[in-house]
Amino acid sequence: MTSGAQLYDVLRRIRPVHELSARAVTEALVERDVSMPMRAVLERLHDAGPQTVPAVARWLHVSRQGVQALVDRAKALGYVETRPNPTHRRSHLVALTARGESVFTAIHAGELATLDQLADGLDPGDVDACVRVLDHLVRELDATVQAPSTERNLP
Amino acid sequence: MTSGAQLYDVLRRIRPVHELSARAVTEALVERDVSMPMRAVLERLHDAGPQTVPAVARWLHVSRQGVQALVDRAKALGYVETRPNPTHRRSHLVALTARGESVFTAIHAGELATLDQLADGLDPGDVDACVRVLDHLVRELDATVQAPSTERNLP
Repeated sequence: MTSGAQLYDVLRRIRPVHELSARAVTEALVERDVSMPMRAVLERLHDAGPQTVPAVARWLHVSRQGVQALVDRAKALGYVETRPNPTHRRSHLVALTARGESVFTAIHAGELATLDQLADGLDPGDVDACVRVLDHLVRELDATVQAPSTERNLP
Repeated sequence: MTSGAQLYDVLRRIRPVHELSARAVTEALVERDVSMPMRAVLERLHDAGPQTVPAVARWLHVSRQGVQALVDRAKALGYVETRPNPTHRRSHLVALTARGESVFTAIHAGELATLDQLADGLDPGDVDACVRVLDHLVRELDATVQAPSTERNLP
């Protein structure tokens, strides 16, 4: 049985990892017109296909307003397009364009090359265990905490 | 040997956990005069004793300016005090007051009670493995990425 104090050992490390990895991602994006929050939206469309703004917002645990602003910017840059939604007339689907797909793929390939180096020395079993713990935390926290306020933006 | 793609499975879960746990911490602080970033400073002083603003900033991976502002606010609330630094005349030590200690302890006791419930169903070995992976990430990312810009603030 795991205690709250043991679990806190995980949680207290989340902020530094988040801070440092955000900095690494931002550095890697410095010569692109894609910000880190926009990158998160492109990734979600890449991974899960065309979907509505509210669906992206739910997945990222942030407000619709924030995602809508990012989608508007990505659309202006030609990275996403909106399409009619066959199941919901008033909520359009957002989809990656070929250009958005190729930008995200290039960004992510660079990230994976960096991560290949960072992964050196890590036990794959530890990594799997870590994913299980983090999934548990996301699930349980999501059930516990309130929905984001409308002012809340990415990241 | 762990691949970058496996390690990315950890990293992509960091933002949701960070977002959700920040929301949970913020909710728990709603009736206090301590913000989440100030809580992080109080915690560091609680854990590691009196230290300088730059030392706290290094630990939290954020700018000195941000920490200085939080320390000023915490001082005005009576939660920290500054003392002469025996080893460095121009950089004062920041220390928790008794009141700061008791506020942090009360906050953290509430957090641990919540975490005891969240921990239910988690394998303690998985939690230990997760801590090892996150420690590896902090160490390696810290060696890779640049120092924070001076504008960067907590969290």
